[in-house]
Amino acid sequence: MERPRHQGMAKNTYMRWRLPLVCLLWEVAMIVLFGVFVRFDPEADAHWEEEKREKNLTSDIENDFYFRYPSFQDVHVMIFVGFGFLMTFLKRYGFGAVGFNFLLAAFGIQWALLMQGWFHSFKSGKILIGVENLINADFCVGSVCIAFGAILGKTSPIQLLVMTLFQVTLFAVNEYILLNLLHVKDAGGSMTIHTFGAYFGLMVTRILYRPNLEQSKDKQGSVYHSDLFAMIGTLYLWMYWPSFNSAISEHGDAQHRAAINTYCSLAACVLTTMAFSSMLQKKGKLDMVHIQNATLAGGVAVGTSAEMMLTPYGSLIVGFICGIVSTVGYVYLTPFLESRLHIQDTCGIHNLHAMPGLIGGIVGAITAAAATEDVYGKEGFIKAFDFTGTYQTRTPSVQGGFQAAGIVVSLLMALAGGALVGAILKLPVWGDAAAENCFEDDIYWEVPEDEENDAYHMHNPDKATSP
Amino acid sequence: MERPRHQGMAKNTYMRWRLPLVCLLWEVAMIVLFGVFVRFDPEADAHWEEEKREKNLTSDIENDFYFRYPSFQDVHVMIFVGFGFLMTFLKRYGFGAVGFNFLLAAFGIQWALLMQGWFHSFKSGKILIGVENLINADFCVGSVCIAFGAILGKTSPIQLLVMTLFQVTLFAVNEYILLNLLHVKDAGGSMTIHTFGAYFGLMVTRILYRPNLEQSKDKQGSVYHSDLFAMIGTLYLWMYWPSFNSAISEHGDAQHRAAINTYCSLAACVLTTMAFSSMLQKKGKLDMVHIQNATLAGGVAVGTSAEMMLTPYGSLIVGFICGIVSTVGYVYLTPFLESRLHIQDTCGIHNLHAMPGLIGGIVGAITAAAATEDVYGKEGFIKAFDFTGTYQTRTPSVQGGFQAAGIVVSLLMALAGGALVGAILKLPVWGDAAAENCFEDDIYWEVPEDEENDAYHMHNPDKATSP
Amino acid sequence: MERPRHQGMAKNTYMRWRLPLVCLLWEVAMIVLFGVFVRFDPEADAHWEEEKREKNLTSDIENDFYFRYPSFQDVHVMIFVGFGFLMTFLKRYGFGAVGFNFLLAAFGIQWALLMQGWFHSFKSGKILIGVENLINADFCVGSVCIAFGAILGKTSPIQLLVMTLFQVTLFAVNEYILLNLLHVKDAGGSMTIHTFGAYFGLMVTRILYRPNLEQSKDKQGSVYHSDLFAMIGTLYLWMYWPSFNSAISEHGDAQHRAAINTYCSLAACVLTTMAFSSMLQKKGKLDMVHIQNATLAGGVAVGTSAEMMLTPYGSLIVGFICGIVSTVGYVYLTPFLESRLHIQDTCGIHNLHAMPGLIGGIVGAITAAAATEDVYGKEGFIKAFDFTGTYQTRTPSVQGGFQAAGIVVSLLMALAGGALVGAILKLPVWGDAAAENCFEDDIYWEVPEDEENDAYHMHNPDKATSP
Repeated sequence: MERPRHQGMAKNTYMRWRLPLVCLLWEVAMIVLFGVFVRFDPEADAHWEEEKREKNLTSDIENDFYFRYPSFQDVHVMIFVGFGFLMTFLKRYGFGAVGFNFLLAAFGIQWALLMQGWFHSFKSGKILIGVENLINADFCVGSVCIAFGAILGKTSPIQLLVMTLFQVTLFAVNEYILLNLLHVKDAGGSMTIHTFGAYFGLMVTRILYRPNLEQSKDKQGSVYHSDLFAMIGTLYLWMYWPSFNSAISEHGDAQHRAAINTYCSLAACVLTTMAFSSMLQKKGKLDMVHIQNATLAGGVAVGTSAEMMLTPYGSLIVGFICGIVSTVGYVYLTPFLESRLHIQDTCGIHNLHAMPGLIGGIVGAITAAAATEDVYGKEGFIKAFDFTGTYQTRTPSVQGGFQAAGIVVSLLMALAGGALVGAILKLPVWGDAAAENCFEDDIYWEVPEDEENDAYHMHNPDKATSP
Repeated sequence: MERPRHQGMAKNTYMRWRLPLVCLLWEVAMIVLFGVFVRFDPEADAHWEEEKREKNLTSDIENDFYFRYPSFQDVHVMIFVGFGFLMTFLKRYGFGAVGFNFLLAAFGIQWALLMQGWFHSFKSGKILIGVENLINADFCVGSVCIAFGAILGKTSPIQLLVMTLFQVTLFAVNEYILLNLLHVKDAGGSMTIHTFGAYFGLMVTRILYRPNLEQSKDKQGSVYHSDLFAMIGTLYLWMYWPSFNSAISEHGDAQHRAAINTYCSLAACVLTTMAFSSMLQKKGKLDMVHIQNATLAGGVAVGTSAEMMLTPYGSLIVGFICGIVSTVGYVYLTPFLESRLHIQDTCGIHNLHAMPGLIGGIVGAITAAAATEDVYGKEGFIKAFDFTGTYQTRTPSVQGGFQAAGIVVSLLMALAGGALVGAILKLPVWGDAAAENCFEDDIYWEVPEDEENDAYHMHNPDKATSP
Repeated sequence: MERPRHQGMAKNTYMRWRLPLVCLLWEVAMIVLFGVFVRFDPEADAHWEEEKREKNLTSDIENDFYFRYPSFQDVHVMIFVGFGFLMTFLKRYGFGAVGFNFLLAAFGIQWALLMQGWFHSFKSGKILIGVENLINADFCVGSVCIAFGAILGKTSPIQLLVMTLFQVTLFAVNEYILLNLLHVKDAGGSMTIHTFGAYFGLMVTRILYRPNLEQSKDKQGSVYHSDLFAMIGTLYLWMYWPSFNSAISEHGDAQHRAAINTYCSLAACVLTTMAFSSMLQKKGKLDMVHIQNATLAGGVAVGTSAEMMLTPYGSLIVGFICGIVSTVGYVYLTPFLESRLHIQDTCGIHNLHAMPGLIGGIVGAITAAAATEDVYGKEGFIKAFDFTGTYQTRTPSVQGGFQAAGIVVSLLMALAGGALVGAILKLPVWGDAAAENCFEDDIYWEVPEDEENDAYHMHNPDKATSP
């Protein structure tokens, strides 16, 4: 910071008026739009007693709240603690990791309630929201958290808010195309959340390429404690992923099955991650980067198929493969992407979300195409793929084809959207830091003077007296 | 510690006999009182099969356990991890923050089960407890955790236990007055928990005013890692607050609605907190103190009204305002309270709980007063405000008046109770530390000699050899 | 590491081929076995619509998923975050604590699904799994996590995997003997999980006795931050223990009751732990080791009886006693076991699991023996102890006798199994570290160079310039 002559120093990272202005104006916009559009779903509305009578429900326990609220809370923890802490691995960017994730997610869920609401819960001029909308909003924001992983440490909070605004919008459009136009199944979001979020983020970071990023190389690593903080994020993502993949599945067996498949896939993924982490390192030691990330790939990769009859051993196979793919990606692909394609991917989302997301889409397409009435039962078959109304005559293999189309659409939307948003974020008005100040909380945060030095002086009286 | 001549040093902080005696005697008293009074609620009793038949329940899922247990666990996490870790921000008081919070809450929930039981669950000489009682006990202790925030670092564990004993007692009395005598609604406890707990704690810390507290000023800040630990507390409080505000609402739509309103309010609150945190600081940088605390004010402020038809946009407005009020409070009010009114508020509970609690009470009163049969439906209206029996003829505006009265009663009870308890805690027998030893775990805890010094020596061989 | 002449250095801790081989081969074996044996339970299978019709279920909410999934997730958190972080207290073994726990548990749950499935869920050649199987697999692995606590820091990851393989197998056999042959009740696993897991681990560590362990004495303690990380583990275990003890109880009152009893027992346990922690230390200060561990003993000790009519005050008494027993154990027994019996018990599982587990078994036997139709109701009595079919004529006192037999069987199985497995782990092929390298992550993990030194240099410019 005593280097006033550097070109980087010229960058204006002063947030005092810009950040408050964006936060306040956008929040006012949210209030106005919520005021005009958002009301309670019948199950959350005080008129529910009448609704119950109409629907012949005999018990309050039939309220969707009791089917989905526990899963919602698990998903909520994944978004705020899971993603937030996963990204605290950097030695001097913990505040930014947790804090900016908090900021963008808090804004994103509001905007997602609106965007998704207009597409999916719009009835006589109003968006009616219930617990399922909250889950979907969290899901949508999950894709932004993923993209954040690629640009972690290199952007200003305003850039993150701008990205959130656009990404949520495009997410909702893409989701609408997949779920409504293509009639694709994707309950755990391999395509809509992971593939879309990851390629979007990779494209953004490609556009924002920083040739001099090695100037902050010393801050791009972890320290012992920061790796433990990151493990909090990892474990919460890992443990609650069964809730993530089952949260919006059909009531009953589908939720149940999605949780079991995800549990199995994740377990297998840990074993192959550990195996390859050790194998790919000359000294055979395990690398925390792999453990923190690649162990989660199994959850991503059953995002589409978990609610289908993937079966426990099918899940193990998917998890097995993804632990390998993801770990190999960290060792070989990430450096390659950076040096050759100029994709600087701070958290390695290409390995954790992009590739496993694609695999997840493909596994989903295959599982759907392979579905039979024998395996699902006559009613179960129709229910699992919602082959009713217009889709009454759709066959499994056609469904598989549409699923595959969903992957392609998500990928294209992500790349086009990421390019657009990357270009917007490149404008020199958003207050991002110079290359040498990346990965450093001090730019946007009041950082306490670390007196750990003093802290142990207290216990080492002889040192305390020395100058 | 090498300053034997200081007056402070004369203070006797030796806990060896006093703390064990209090813990053991009080726990024995709990056992005796539980033995005499506490039994299982019919839904937790082995006779439940008979109960089910009587009530014509066809399924075990109708047991209140399944309606409330997930919310209970979320609340439980808020009390022990949420409050505990939120207070670990101090650089050398992490053990005290988490450990004393653990101690007082573990004692408090037992005493609360009794006190609240006598008032609310007393049937033919026995207190019958079920999951709702556990939630209420946690709620009651929540108000003690809030008060603890004001005196954090300045009291002995015995003082905390004494305060818990009295505060839980007074909480139960106040709660009885509000809920039973005034027939006030306050499911999320804006009045009973936050207003009461915060003003109680502020009064206690006022009475315990320490003129020489600047002697431990160097320990009153955070270090980098302690701020991240505190964020664990913040995020768990933030994420689970929808469970807190909905945990004891009526089954069905009320629980559902309370969760949605709280979710919205909290989201808005993050945006305005970030805005004002940056705006009020000359360099425009964000302050972790604000992020850790003011982001939660939105949850406090919909504590009364969340289960009502506040509507999502109403919630956004409340959250919007409270993020501002709370952040401004941290910047301007806290220093003022300390210098002018001699209120030393370690965690700034005035900004996080007191003001938002009052706002929450007022918002609740207004929302109740504005209720109409049109908005709630005929049945919903009666159910929402429990306008049955004696209260059959109460109108919304009268209800609003009683809600307002509830705020005043809570405030007065808190101030009177806090003054009384503060006076008791001022007696020189409880083993509190001298001003210069405040905010320091070393007084009451075995603290490991921090060898982080040694830790990196291992990796810096050239340093390891130097003396 | 500059001591090449030490005998310990000769040890080959190189994991590069051994660990990957074990992980990959075993995971392939899992896939094959799952492929042959594991299918979905009817409640997780797509045929569920037909099942519902057969069983006359009118609502999806009757799916076992909604009865048990929230508890499952709490248990899941206990296994991975609870046990994982509880063991991070060591200053330089945080990666191993969390990471190896992650590895062994991820493998263990798969093997447990098979082993327990063959014994309990085997129907026409297939193991049918649902959410209850996931909980039981987590439970089974819990006993391995316990044993891991005894050998923490002294074994290679391969040894841990080998131990997991054998311990899960023996666990399933022991569980089968208790639950099926002896018809013993043990929903929270005082006997099957804690007694078995702890004595198994103690026997293993006895066999693996390291006479020169004092060479790594300097690494066997905690630092300030590592104690806070450990408290995350403690609190999650403590908070979610009511879910643990109630997770697989009968639907309805039994689950409800088990949660309440555990809540009470744990609360009392905190008070006596604090009391004795202070009392047994000359300076009267609290010891984090006790707070982190002994506070949990109350949950262990009601593992068998929580679902019975233990009553809240009975639970308080059990918690009261166990806090004392466990804390006294840490102060007096652990050093004795190490010096006299050569049992090196890193985490003190003897105090947290072994003794409280035995107490839990005894309390369960007494509570069962004391059961009457009066207390349980006629139907409740039969339901609570499953006195149907072959067991129709069993009396409470006979049940008490069988419960006591269950303790003895668990103890013997643990000691014999632990001796066998300890002998296997002693073979010099598993890559464990030399005594002087115990409790050190650097052996098996890539450890970042801790630049906390540099970190504050940034803020101390005058130091940054000095060499």
